[in-house]
Amino acid sequence: MDLELVTIGTELLLGFTVDTNSAFLGQALAGAGVRITRRTSVPDEPAAVAAAVSEALARSRLVITTGGLGPTKDDLSKTVVAELFGLPLEFHQEIWDAIVARFARMGRKLSDRNRCQAEVPRGATVLPNPRGTAPGLWISGAPGEVIMLPGVPGEMRGLVSNEVVPRLAARSGGTVVRSHVLRTTGIAESMLAERLEPVEDSLAPLTLAYLPSLEGVDLRLTVWNAEPDRADALLAEAAARLQQPIAEHVYGTGQQDLAEVVLARFRERQWTLAVAESCTGGMLGTRITAIPGSSGVFRGGLIAYHDELKRDLGVPARILEQHGAVSEETVREMALAARRKYGATTALAISGIAGPDGGSSEKPVGTVWIAHADAAGSEAHRAVFPGSRQEIRIRATQAALWRLWRRARAATL
Amino acid sequence: MDLELVTIGTELLLGFTVDTNSAFLGQALAGAGVRITRRTSVPDEPAAVAAAVSEALARSRLVITTGGLGPTKDDLSKTVVAELFGLPLEFHQEIWDAIVARFARMGRKLSDRNRCQAEVPRGATVLPNPRGTAPGLWISGAPGEVIMLPGVPGEMRGLVSNEVVPRLAARSGGTVVRSHVLRTTGIAESMLAERLEPVEDSLAPLTLAYLPSLEGVDLRLTVWNAEPDRADALLAEAAARLQQPIAEHVYGTGQQDLAEVVLARFRERQWTLAVAESCTGGMLGTRITAIPGSSGVFRGGLIAYHDELKRDLGVPARILEQHGAVSEETVREMALAARRKYGATTALAISGIAGPDGGSSEKPVGTVWIAHADAAGSEAHRAVFPGSRQEIRIRATQAALWRLWRRARAATL
Repeated sequence: MDLELVTIGTELLLGFTVDTNSAFLGQALAGAGVRITRRTSVPDEPAAVAAAVSEALARSRLVITTGGLGPTKDDLSKTVVAELFGLPLEFHQEIWDAIVARFARMGRKLSDRNRCQAEVPRGATVLPNPRGTAPGLWISGAPGEVIMLPGVPGEMRGLVSNEVVPRLAARSGGTVVRSHVLRTTGIAESMLAERLEPVEDSLAPLTLAYLPSLEGVDLRLTVWNAEPDRADALLAEAAARLQQPIAEHVYGTGQQDLAEVVLARFRERQWTLAVAESCTGGMLGTRITAIPGSSGVFRGGLIAYHDELKRDLGVPARILEQHGAVSEETVREMALAARRKYGATTALAISGIAGPDGGSSEKPVGTVWIAHADAAGSEAHRAVFPGSRQEIRIRATQAALWRLWRRARAATL
Repeated sequence: MDLELVTIGTELLLGFTVDTNSAFLGQALAGAGVRITRRTSVPDEPAAVAAAVSEALARSRLVITTGGLGPTKDDLSKTVVAELFGLPLEFHQEIWDAIVARFARMGRKLSDRNRCQAEVPRGATVLPNPRGTAPGLWISGAPGEVIMLPGVPGEMRGLVSNEVVPRLAARSGGTVVRSHVLRTTGIAESMLAERLEPVEDSLAPLTLAYLPSLEGVDLRLTVWNAEPDRADALLAEAAARLQQPIAEHVYGTGQQDLAEVVLARFRERQWTLAVAESCTGGMLGTRITAIPGSSGVFRGGLIAYHDELKRDLGVPARILEQHGAVSEETVREMALAARRKYGATTALAISGIAGPDGGSSEKPVGTVWIAHADAAGSEAHRAVFPGSRQEIRIRATQAALWRLWRRARAATL
């Protein structure tokens, strides 16, 4: 089943808003076996909205619109679409009552402008929107069908998941487009492609996409238009074959975060963690404590930004003097000291040059030393990361977590 | 001057890629006085691309396309557009030489598929793309003009800034659409609107938009179609009037980060900073050290996640027992201890309940205590932030930086 999407809003064309709604809709509809064949964005102008919606209806008979359902004078989508279908707008008392109650709950003043949000084209299905004032509308008639959704992302998402997808899925004949993502890190895209070449040729009819980011390369397998059970079986089989030549790099699936996976492995082993961070300035701690329940594993640690704080932690002054703050020796001492001082089974330390200044020919910007220490001793690794200051820090944080993951994976219980 | 945008790529419609290119183009073109009147996204299918481009040309005579210029078989935009204009494709040796040299530099293998990237519709202007292999193309003919750009964001941006905007600006008669953003924090959108009501009515013909985020509310003033000098004067005058009733909340302009502003004020005063973070787990340190040159001000600090680390820092055990980790007394002691221990003029401490668990009726999820300490003593504030774990942490970090900003602003030099 195909449909077209019309997104309405001057701010989309001026570039003040990044259109994340379209990406959400694309994924949510694909999951229901529905393909978006075209997306059109127009400003909040009646003629532009009318032209875009009627052209889309002429091509596909089924159209989703987002935006233009608010209370201000810019919000005219509903009037325009009602006219296209030749339907009068009718005031719905129960929608108005819900709007009044909502405003009262939030202690906000209601204006007369809000009344238009309770108007519905005659015969349209009202899609309840508990997250906002404007309900969604499903309008059918001679030109086809238009599903009108608000542009506010939270409201639109709720309506799509709860009202639109179930209704469309029921029509789509039971086939789905489904993806499975393997998350990799610590290996370059080109190297991945080389290792996967033998497998890749045998994946058809599934497709494989490489999605590089600062945290690694995601591998997205996709099955197109299969029944759900068949799709899942194909994906599981392909994922298993794909994983084999790169197992030490595949840390998770879907949107799993490496910090979450590391914490789970530490919890299994009853290990605890402390950190000592220089160039990342707390980013490692932030990543780890973003995971609910991290307090069972994570004790905390030092943001040892200034060298005095590294000495205070326990790095001998002569090591800092002889080898510098960004060196194997210093980062090892940071990890060993953090482990001792903060009473953790394992400690992780990072020290590097995030730039833009401070590099040299020997230690260029991007040079990062990472060390971890536990009962078995300490281990240090050096890397030179490309990119901006922030990119180098993100890559360094991910690389440090990957070292912990490898360590926890290798350890015998 | 008006134009239409056609973005080409199956991934855009499937929702696997968020379309950030459109937002960049909207802003960059508005700055050159060019308005995008419609954006159409189509999949990598010849018929869909041909239909979208020819319809756009019929409406506006000037069209920008992005995507479909790569070396794979999906990339067919150029062939389709050349056919619309009735132009043959010609092989350009100098483009091919540049592609060969680029691959050699990167140590990558060149495939025969890349040869098509050196083909150009007869008579088209080649727009050099030093960031990638496919150049941009500016094609003119009977149907109008099509500017073809690669879809890779970095390459597209470079071509727009260096090649497209200068050429279009020269045509646009010298008027621009220009915005000025005031960044506020520590005040709700509704409260801002109330304070600004008297000013707001007198801003026309400028428009004012409220842009709320987790870090505060940005106020965007926009002048539409004025000459550059006149636009700047109007914006400066309006910004000054807008700022007056809310001065203690306006910390910057444009995309300035609050951490950057705080560091600048600290540098002026020759103050130094240390932190002690519990629920934010290093986010405060991360924000501060994201700013190049932060090492002149920032010494570091403790991620005091586990209560043992708070005791180790110097918070008396009886205070933790009597008042708990999330309390005025504990957070004050954290700030005072961090100041002493890490030798900074000023210390900032955060302790709170980021959730999803750990809340109580007395201290619900979102409760955060923030304290700062300096030679004049210490000050503590409590807030209850809404949102997810991550949102609460981001709001708490921003609120803590705002306290520092107010402190540095109020202090007599």
